[in-house]
Amino acid sequence: MQAVRSATHPSAAGHAVRALLFDTFGTVVDWRAGIVREVAPFLSRHGISGRAEDFADGWRERYQPAMQRVRAGERSFVRLDVIHRENLEDLLVAWGAEPGELPAGELDDLTRAWHRLDPWPDAIEGLRRLRERFVVAPLSNGNIALLTNMAKRAGLPWDCILGAEVVRAYKPDPRAYLDTAEVLGLAPSECMMVAAHNDDLAAAASVGLRTAFVRRPTEHGPTQATDLEPTGAWDHVVSDFVELAASLR
Amino acid sequence: MQAVRSATHPSAAGHAVRALLFDTFGTVVDWRAGIVREVAPFLSRHGISGRAEDFADGWRERYQPAMQRVRAGERSFVRLDVIHRENLEDLLVAWGAEPGELPAGELDDLTRAWHRLDPWPDAIEGLRRLRERFVVAPLSNGNIALLTNMAKRAGLPWDCILGAEVVRAYKPDPRAYLDTAEVLGLAPSECMMVAAHNDDLAAAASVGLRTAFVRRPTEHGPTQATDLEPTGAWDHVVSDFVELAASLR
Repeated sequence: MQAVRSATHPSAAGHAVRALLFDTFGTVVDWRAGIVREVAPFLSRHGISGRAEDFADGWRERYQPAMQRVRAGERSFVRLDVIHRENLEDLLVAWGAEPGELPAGELDDLTRAWHRLDPWPDAIEGLRRLRERFVVAPLSNGNIALLTNMAKRAGLPWDCILGAEVVRAYKPDPRAYLDTAEVLGLAPSECMMVAAHNDDLAAAASVGLRTAFVRRPTEHGPTQATDLEPTGAWDHVVSDFVELAASLR
Repeated sequence: MQAVRSATHPSAAGHAVRALLFDTFGTVVDWRAGIVREVAPFLSRHGISGRAEDFADGWRERYQPAMQRVRAGERSFVRLDVIHRENLEDLLVAWGAEPGELPAGELDDLTRAWHRLDPWPDAIEGLRRLRERFVVAPLSNGNIALLTNMAKRAGLPWDCILGAEVVRAYKPDPRAYLDTAEVLGLAPSECMMVAAHNDDLAAAASVGLRTAFVRRPTEHGPTQATDLEPTGAWDHVVSDFVELAASLR
């Protein structure tokens, strides 16, 4: 790819943004509400007591440590669907349930609740406007099937599905950002990472991508205490995707 | 992925088709007309004599042998953009030109003519109808940037961009088909390969995918002699994508 483009590249500083790469869980979709919606009847059906919100938070808390094993090289790359399923079983044990006694088909289906999350209210309209001028794609730790099923169900107008599975590296591993730019045939500075998480943007910026912070103050529920405001000098700071489209005009 | 789905899978024979996977060059887009359109002014501008059609055919003839080196393990996986650029230089030498004396930016741009191919007249409408009921994606030897740029320019409504670069194997390597089904979280028999080429369908069928043959009798120009009719017992045989949508109702 370098060979194909190098001769026409201006200096990195002069690059215009060509592609917008979106964190997905929390930035594009409201994972917590979607998981709670599916966990609540599951817990009730199997007589597991406790709040669905706590179960959702417990499932999500197991996400980073599980990916860290891949990032650290302790485990070869596995899809997020597999990690979500393993973490569900681990969580059920912590909640006093025995996963082996629950119907496997139901555990499969509940794992795919992560494929059925709803977008934030502005996401589709914002993406539609942004797509007129930029390549728009998820750069998510979600796997391709998860992101494809999510987009088809919700109507997210992606140009292509990118992310951890394409480059076989989980964010914030620098390869996740750099290899994704290379897949698109673009320099890092021609790509902008869009995320509701300061750590994702810091990792992207450290390898040369542009950055846009989107406030999602209820991603973790009404008492959210993290990522309420930008903590770095990001290129854009907005409250939703429609505002981002206006900022990038 | 197996772990997530296995418990709910019926027997292979009972699977309904969930995803349609499309060969792209020749099946979705008219590569020859698109390449001729861009090659003609290039040859003229640089005083290279000969027919643009012959140049296009010569470029395409170098495609399979170059990929074969990857399939045979003589070379590690490289993107099709790189192969196209190498083959362009090789072809120019065969045509008596010296690639090193031509502007590198022009060779880069001509290589990206493969990103700017027009779809056959029925392709967009057919895909739009098929997308209502199936996941639709290219399963092409083209790389992700090529297929993404092509889709964006032409308006091809893919659900996601799959193909050689995602699975790092070139068709007709069986892994290209099997690993693509696995990426989608589907059994091979839940996927249907759609192609204008009998050899592509034979390879897909041999590893359990369903098949649809689409007649594209002018892919190779007005005197085309190959792939005019199906040579295998494919599940569907149609003349365009709109007919395929009707067949799959």
